[in-house]
Amino acid sequence: MSRGPTRRAPGPRAREIRDAALALFAERGYAATTMADIGAAVGMRGPSLYKHVGSKQELLAQIMTGTMDDLLQTFRVAVAGCEDVVERLRRAAEAHVRYHARHRLEAFVGTREIRSLEEPHRTDVLRRRAAYESAFRALLAEGAEAGRFRIATVKLTSYAILDLGMGAAVWYRENGDLTEDQVVYQYGDFALRLAGVH
Amino acid sequence: MSRGPTRRAPGPRAREIRDAALALFAERGYAATTMADIGAAVGMRGPSLYKHVGSKQELLAQIMTGTMDDLLQTFRVAVAGCEDVVERLRRAAEAHVRYHARHRLEAFVGTREIRSLEEPHRTDVLRRRAAYESAFRALLAEGAEAGRFRIATVKLTSYAILDLGMGAAVWYRENGDLTEDQVVYQYGDFALRLAGVH
Repeated sequence: MSRGPTRRAPGPRAREIRDAALALFAERGYAATTMADIGAAVGMRGPSLYKHVGSKQELLAQIMTGTMDDLLQTFRVAVAGCEDVVERLRRAAEAHVRYHARHRLEAFVGTREIRSLEEPHRTDVLRRRAAYESAFRALLAEGAEAGRFRIATVKLTSYAILDLGMGAAVWYRENGDLTEDQVVYQYGDFALRLAGVH
Repeated sequence: MSRGPTRRAPGPRAREIRDAALALFAERGYAATTMADIGAAVGMRGPSLYKHVGSKQELLAQIMTGTMDDLLQTFRVAVAGCEDVVERLRRAAEAHVRYHARHRLEAFVGTREIRSLEEPHRTDVLRRRAAYESAFRALLAEGAEAGRFRIATVKLTSYAILDLGMGAAVWYRENGDLTEDQVVYQYGDFALRLAGVH
């Protein structure tokens, strides 16, 4: 079997390393984290660690592009097979907030470490992020054109809706006094209010 | 003149040190910043630096409590002398977003470094933050009771409104295609929409 650069599904060990890196990046920041820290967190030393992952930068890139790919996929699934633009916005906003509530560390690192990404990773992530924002804007523009939304600026409205997700990633806790579904359903409603649905 | 622990207004040098610390904390994180880095940024060495500031921790505490004091003061000014609860919410939300657009680094560090604060600073900051959130919640509850707002959960609505500010701090740029006022006025409107004002 080739051990070349072909992309394969990550094994359990690679996943464990990725999760440890994510936790460390979130806790102390990318700059302050070393590969030795990541190795220590999963009980591996240099050589065996490097069998699974090329560098700290590769780990960050994998986390950040993976997060954006997941969000893009989540959006596609949310709006698929749904005609009504109001319902599509609700579903997309709900999916956005649910993802952020479930992936708080990814959201945190994704916002904070964009400057730590080197090229071509930085451009890769920014391109995916732009595609995700565009998908929301297209939805908002379509609804506004159809007279279903009352929107002053599509761009600001998309920011506001997307920022709801980031916010939830900051304060949401699994053991808090609001369940994930309560948060998700109410935020879906917030998105419709922001879009000016009556 | 006493050089004791009496609190005085910070001199220009202390302000410069504070700003350099803020920029470094925002850029590379609190943990990865040293007092030597801060000194280098303002062209000062150990002894003269320590004449102005006690420690890196003191700088962080000063930045974070100062930010919350500013926000609390901004809120008070925004709602003062205004009877109408809808108008008070609009003004408070506008002031919140304007502060975040103007103090992006403070907002960023304030969110990220809460865990880096030692006691009693951490409790000081969390207490101020709770007071600020409470002020918004009291406004929302008052408006809901008066039948001016339609709110499912005061807590979630307050989070959503406050998160708009955090979001703006992330993406707002002085030289962007939206002026500060455009952002502020539209976000004031967003707050009223989130509160269910007709």
